[in-house]
Amino acid sequence: MSTPLVPSPVRVIGTGLIGGSIGLALSAAGVDVQLEDVSPGTESLAVEMGAGRRAHDDDADPALVVVAAPPDVAGGIVVSALERWPGAVVTDVASVKSIVLAAVLAAVDSDAVPLGAQDAARYVGAHPMAGREVSGVIAARGDLFDARPFVVVPHPGSDPDAVATVRALGIQLGSVCLDLDAAGHDLAVAHVSHVPQVVASLLGASLLEAPERSLGLAGQGLRDTSRIAASDPRLWVEILGANAAAVSPVLTQMRDRLDAVIDGLGTMTGDPDPRTGSRRAVAGLIADGNRGVQRIPGKHGGAIDAFATITVLVPDRPGELGRLFTEMGEAGINLEDLSLEHTYGKKVGLAHVSVQRGSEALLTDALRERGWSVAGA
Amino acid sequence: MSTPLVPSPVRVIGTGLIGGSIGLALSAAGVDVQLEDVSPGTESLAVEMGAGRRAHDDDADPALVVVAAPPDVAGGIVVSALERWPGAVVTDVASVKSIVLAAVLAAVDSDAVPLGAQDAARYVGAHPMAGREVSGVIAARGDLFDARPFVVVPHPGSDPDAVATVRALGIQLGSVCLDLDAAGHDLAVAHVSHVPQVVASLLGASLLEAPERSLGLAGQGLRDTSRIAASDPRLWVEILGANAAAVSPVLTQMRDRLDAVIDGLGTMTGDPDPRTGSRRAVAGLIADGNRGVQRIPGKHGGAIDAFATITVLVPDRPGELGRLFTEMGEAGINLEDLSLEHTYGKKVGLAHVSVQRGSEALLTDALRERGWSVAGA
Repeated sequence: MSTPLVPSPVRVIGTGLIGGSIGLALSAAGVDVQLEDVSPGTESLAVEMGAGRRAHDDDADPALVVVAAPPDVAGGIVVSALERWPGAVVTDVASVKSIVLAAVLAAVDSDAVPLGAQDAARYVGAHPMAGREVSGVIAARGDLFDARPFVVVPHPGSDPDAVATVRALGIQLGSVCLDLDAAGHDLAVAHVSHVPQVVASLLGASLLEAPERSLGLAGQGLRDTSRIAASDPRLWVEILGANAAAVSPVLTQMRDRLDAVIDGLGTMTGDPDPRTGSRRAVAGLIADGNRGVQRIPGKHGGAIDAFATITVLVPDRPGELGRLFTEMGEAGINLEDLSLEHTYGKKVGLAHVSVQRGSEALLTDALRERGWSVAGA
Repeated sequence: MSTPLVPSPVRVIGTGLIGGSIGLALSAAGVDVQLEDVSPGTESLAVEMGAGRRAHDDDADPALVVVAAPPDVAGGIVVSALERWPGAVVTDVASVKSIVLAAVLAAVDSDAVPLGAQDAARYVGAHPMAGREVSGVIAARGDLFDARPFVVVPHPGSDPDAVATVRALGIQLGSVCLDLDAAGHDLAVAHVSHVPQVVASLLGASLLEAPERSLGLAGQGLRDTSRIAASDPRLWVEILGANAAAVSPVLTQMRDRLDAVIDGLGTMTGDPDPRTGSRRAVAGLIADGNRGVQRIPGKHGGAIDAFATITVLVPDRPGELGRLFTEMGEAGINLEDLSLEHTYGKKVGLAHVSVQRGSEALLTDALRERGWSVAGA
């Protein structure tokens, strides 16, 4: 085992999915992890799973404290950790950062709390971006953060050594680290996570009004667009509330645009001129949607249209997908992306296979030679 | 070759992606297909690809006419086809049906057009639901409709034999047929296709305002929710305009809900009581989104939560996915669904593998034995 990048001991406060997974990863790397949770049952389960050992009053002071609690309570716990351990670097992994930083800075300014700027310097926020639809320590995994973004969130008063320690935590977890300030982080997650959640939930909620038979026509488009609507309501009320300042302006702009589209649809019937206001609202929306979605980085940061997609019919039997990918491998072609589609009532699936643009003809030929039905472009 | 289900000859009017694909499938089944397109170049290309033969003035009258044109022009072409071939069943494959039916019924009522109720009886609408992000005859494939829903849309005056002929077309294409009336169809596609398009486009458009660095944090949630925002603007202006009557009320209800959420977010800071209006708007949205998305039928009509998802780390080398699926097949486990996720900047992917609930532990063990990193629940 190589020397851990993170100093020991590490105190993890809150041993749910995220705290438990951090404990598992650090313990596996040889770090001494002290676990603490408001729920004795959760704490015991985390210990049993191997996330660390139960924290005791006579423990050595931690070198690093990781607060893994929801955004509405993380700030208070960070402040108390800064007080309890005057030598420790303190981080938190809540998914909204300004509200936590504000709590720390308010404590420094307050006469009621014995903290100064040198204490705030020991606080550096973090956000390991491991989205899961499950929760709880039972779902914790040491590799939860592997290959995921890990945002390090220093504030202007953060000590560079503290920043380096929190960055080392991200590297130790196997994540891809990047730095953003709290406001930048919160705006970023509003755009890439919180607003998509609201949009997917709005779409999901609209299905409550759809006649039963309509839903039999659901295809991959609806499934993809609404997938994250299955997320946990309690968690999301906290997240959206904590990041309301960043989320609301984006939603308000979206609402105004939706208003314009509704107005446009109400008046465009029979008007084929794309320059008039009504059609322009609708055409502009779709065109801007095209441009916006092109801004999302593709795999490994490549441009999305570097890939070509072909569609293969896959009989619904064990091993058929295995055979498909084995034969793709034999043809020397690497899969860039894949989605599977099943049709209501039919025992065959469609595999949409993305490959580097330029290799799609080669792959199509190779698969057809081997007897596959290829329906792609 | 077995006897085709569809009578010959079939006239296909409009030989783009959909018309061309229908021509390819019917020609391959031994049907005599006459092709006709306003663009001589498109028509020639369809002939060259094997979708049928070029229509001539002295051709035998078609038994079935398939109008494959956008919803705004399909009605006029259907009316003229009913006039030109008094013995033919006429269908169209536009993605909005009320507007086409209205054109047919208006023609019957009009003194200017020599059509009667017996002619309208020969019209039965259809909608083969093969969504593709590409267009044009060059992308046409005979198996485009294989395993996809094919909606047959009779009107109250439709002749039962004409309905049977159009249903036979769907079966011949390899599709899964179901019947809906025009209003039912248009409401269904508003819910499962048109509103999701608007929602994805709104989300895509919102990304235009996002700082560049934010987008590096994009994960699978944003990618899935915004994927269909990449659709063709010209086509979608026609579709949304033609189905405005069904789409607008759903969007209006969504706008009202979004208003309530924006109001709620503006006032909920510091109010932890879930019963007050502000939090209730946000919590209610997410909860209703949960319930709505659960209404989408799963694979083969099964309930979505019949499946469990595990996550496997896949090195980014040719053949690794093949090895994964081969080894899943060896373990006797059938994949129900799959999505792949790549992280910006890191050469490893995550495969989210859905299997029948109950078999996830077996699969996890089988994969771990074979050396895979499994991060799933």
